[in-house]
Amino acid sequence: MAVVTEPIKVTVWNENFHETDDKYREAMAQRYPEGIHGAIAAGLREVLGEAVETRTATLDQPEHGLTDEVLASTDVLTWWGHVKHGDVDDAVVAKVHEAVLGGMGLLVLHSGHFSKIFKRLLGTSCALAWRSKDDTELVWTVAPGHPIAEGVPHPIRIPEQEMYGEYFDIPEPDELVFISSFTGGEVFRSGCTFRRGRGRIFYFSPGDQDFPVYHHPDIKRVLANGVRWAAPEQRSGRTAPGLVNMKVPDFVGGSLNPEAGE
Amino acid sequence: MAVVTEPIKVTVWNENFHETDDKYREAMAQRYPEGIHGAIAAGLREVLGEAVETRTATLDQPEHGLTDEVLASTDVLTWWGHVKHGDVDDAVVAKVHEAVLGGMGLLVLHSGHFSKIFKRLLGTSCALAWRSKDDTELVWTVAPGHPIAEGVPHPIRIPEQEMYGEYFDIPEPDELVFISSFTGGEVFRSGCTFRRGRGRIFYFSPGDQDFPVYHHPDIKRVLANGVRWAAPEQRSGRTAPGLVNMKVPDFVGGSLNPEAGE
Amino acid sequence: MAVVTEPIKVTVWNENFHETDDKYREAMAQRYPEGIHGAIAAGLREVLGEAVETRTATLDQPEHGLTDEVLASTDVLTWWGHVKHGDVDDAVVAKVHEAVLGGMGLLVLHSGHFSKIFKRLLGTSCALAWRSKDDTELVWTVAPGHPIAEGVPHPIRIPEQEMYGEYFDIPEPDELVFISSFTGGEVFRSGCTFRRGRGRIFYFSPGDQDFPVYHHPDIKRVLANGVRWAAPEQRSGRTAPGLVNMKVPDFVGGSLNPEAGE
Amino acid sequence: MAVVTEPIKVTVWNENFHETDDKYREAMAQRYPEGIHGAIAAGLREVLGEAVETRTATLDQPEHGLTDEVLASTDVLTWWGHVKHGDVDDAVVAKVHEAVLGGMGLLVLHSGHFSKIFKRLLGTSCALAWRSKDDTELVWTVAPGHPIAEGVPHPIRIPEQEMYGEYFDIPEPDELVFISSFTGGEVFRSGCTFRRGRGRIFYFSPGDQDFPVYHHPDIKRVLANGVRWAAPEQRSGRTAPGLVNMKVPDFVGGSLNPEAGE
Repeated sequence: MAVVTEPIKVTVWNENFHETDDKYREAMAQRYPEGIHGAIAAGLREVLGEAVETRTATLDQPEHGLTDEVLASTDVLTWWGHVKHGDVDDAVVAKVHEAVLGGMGLLVLHSGHFSKIFKRLLGTSCALAWRSKDDTELVWTVAPGHPIAEGVPHPIRIPEQEMYGEYFDIPEPDELVFISSFTGGEVFRSGCTFRRGRGRIFYFSPGDQDFPVYHHPDIKRVLANGVRWAAPEQRSGRTAPGLVNMKVPDFVGGSLNPEAGE
Repeated sequence: MAVVTEPIKVTVWNENFHETDDKYREAMAQRYPEGIHGAIAAGLREVLGEAVETRTATLDQPEHGLTDEVLASTDVLTWWGHVKHGDVDDAVVAKVHEAVLGGMGLLVLHSGHFSKIFKRLLGTSCALAWRSKDDTELVWTVAPGHPIAEGVPHPIRIPEQEMYGEYFDIPEPDELVFISSFTGGEVFRSGCTFRRGRGRIFYFSPGDQDFPVYHHPDIKRVLANGVRWAAPEQRSGRTAPGLVNMKVPDFVGGSLNPEAGE
Repeated sequence: MAVVTEPIKVTVWNENFHETDDKYREAMAQRYPEGIHGAIAAGLREVLGEAVETRTATLDQPEHGLTDEVLASTDVLTWWGHVKHGDVDDAVVAKVHEAVLGGMGLLVLHSGHFSKIFKRLLGTSCALAWRSKDDTELVWTVAPGHPIAEGVPHPIRIPEQEMYGEYFDIPEPDELVFISSFTGGEVFRSGCTFRRGRGRIFYFSPGDQDFPVYHHPDIKRVLANGVRWAAPEQRSGRTAPGLVNMKVPDFVGGSLNPEAGE
Repeated sequence: MAVVTEPIKVTVWNENFHETDDKYREAMAQRYPEGIHGAIAAGLREVLGEAVETRTATLDQPEHGLTDEVLASTDVLTWWGHVKHGDVDDAVVAKVHEAVLGGMGLLVLHSGHFSKIFKRLLGTSCALAWRSKDDTELVWTVAPGHPIAEGVPHPIRIPEQEMYGEYFDIPEPDELVFISSFTGGEVFRSGCTFRRGRGRIFYFSPGDQDFPVYHHPDIKRVLANGVRWAAPEQRSGRTAPGLVNMKVPDFVGGSLNPEAGE
């Protein structure tokens, strides 16, 4: 009496700058020995087990590791970037954009709020207020029945974290799942979902290069929930709906035309 | 490399009036030999197989078949009623209401738009325009990435169906999945989702006692998709979030209080 | 080159319990010498001037001051209640409900979240977490282009206020305008809009019997903005859309029926 | 007892191609002697009188008529384009984008769905299905309390119009105001609102170069309602919220920081 489901193929993308730059490398090696991408991928495997297959891709690879083949076989892409957003090739961004409209899930993480792909999908500046200074972050669930909030304490407590505050210039989310508060009294819409085309997008702000947030068990859980929620029902052969306009054949007289729109 | 999931326990509710009334019985026996509830349950099993377990409940049973035990072991309840809405016991409605807020999924079908439970959950009159007169209904998908629209043609064509038209007095749906048109030129928001408390609600209008709509393969598919979408992650031990206000313990000085809200 | 608009007729409702009860009367007379309703009405007149006409109504009046005549000539009703929700007559609640669906604006204030009318309109428990204990509340704007946020600082600072915290069991608001944080680290969706039928509803949580919040200039401004936003375009002769189902006349052949739905 | 409001400054933009091209000029001169832009501007003045001031701008003008001065003094911009979307300068699109995020209202009309500015603001392909072939369009109101639907019949009947059908690849609208049906049985979300940054956007599909839709009294009314709804409260000195990230000053100890975010 069991149901068998294919594992979700996740590609974890990272600009991989702090991990490789002389200024940050040593501290990062302590905090994230396999890079932020390695930590995120390990967390997904830890929570989801055989329900997930992970691989990673980084900015320095050809086509940033996001070739047509990789995108075509990716159910959910997670995106982490911070200071190298400008170095991401517009052609790759366009391909990722099209893949999302075609149904690929996308998790945009933390400073990825200012990535080209997130701004392009949302159409706003995606700017926010911030401060990196010993804040504690409390992550409160405001949609307790949402799959992404499943099994998460109320609040999640992150002892040390960068502050992200409102106003966060995004469209009204389709669903607001989490709101965070910080020691300074700021608030932030820290967990938001958006549907664009056939694709599902989850933005989740906790997670930083300076704090070991991706090792936090509740954060791992949220990311795993997010991946499951964003994964398309149809795992391959996706095409973007309506990237071009579609001329519909004539109808006959005043009668209904059941072929219309096909 | 497989993931095992528990089957979804569905209770299919029907007022069971047309099936038993002298005026309609004979025609109904031709159209729905096992009742509308029997047809809906069979359709779910046909599409979902071992992923679902179904039982039925009807108005004439003690507590309308919706005892505490039944509700506690129901993941998703489907509701079909038409002329006997007024006979549904308010105490049962209150229990179903609480169960939905606690996480039980609810599919409200066709004329169930005027049921006590739907009006109570939505807070509006839920009235609409209608005509029972040889219309063809076309059901167009406006959220192609939504799990409920998975595998459904665009449009679904229902050769004969009662017309339901706007204005449909409901709150703006959380997600609008389907819009229908009818031969008379009317339109209707025929597939709508709502979250209330921890519960997910899907209203779907196609389906009628006078037409064999619940045997239509695409309609079976939509109902099966709806059941999967509405099923809670947590399949038992659900409690409504916050049916009463909760006094939060004092905080200490100006410091954060991680226990708050638990 | 000027546009002339009719003044908005506002009825300010208060249960008027704390103002008259032996235990609270003296403190209330200091804080709100004309009652909470008097303070709210005065604030509206101060901000809106000739653009508004106010009157008040209280629980102890016949029909709680909300007769058919009063409701028919009210553009926007504001509702404040706390411990006497249970004493509000269901018949009056039903009339207010119908008036809102017909287009009357409604502002539900602070502890009014647990009023019969708010629960009936929203369909959820409307429960929340709370603590009355020296919190400071910061009210952050998350929809800076919304008319209700016009002219409001970011954040509004309320030095002393009762804490209201998540999870607040309401449907996802149509628009989320404000999020508050409190000294204890809690967050709350403190400014929310909902459309129900033809009516516009604004819930705003700041405001309490124990603190002089309704004298705060920014809070007065938000309430005035809320009244302007909630006021219907059509100031009289409103009828609820579709409180009953409407049978639509036959159409002719396969042709369009322009009269449908009228 | 009157309220005085400043007139709304509207700039009506048109690519002005069909009006000037040899192939279409003669027919257009019959249908729209002052161009589509002239007809739209005249309709706004007819309905709104002294509440509006209009001017027009076209593709062939320097900076397409949308200089910094024009944008800075525009409360609401209306956009009509069809076959010349590609000729609109990206630099002008960027300025319009910024103006909208800063609070300028935007009405995107008919084939403007495929304009650069609309795609950029929405982040999706904005593609749809279409047929130009003797359809009648019925425009049904699904948000009767919305200011944009004020005074509009249900349905609006447009005897001859191009068909626009679903799937329309847009984000879920913040508010869905109108749904249209066509002779062929197709449906379309024909009236949609979106908030982006401080700006309000209204997309409205009825209106075409081949049919005299902008002379239809109900369509004029909808456009006038749309302009009033989209006009910002603050008529000048607007700045986009958060086009850049904002570093927030330190907080002191564990205490609240009322200056945060300013």
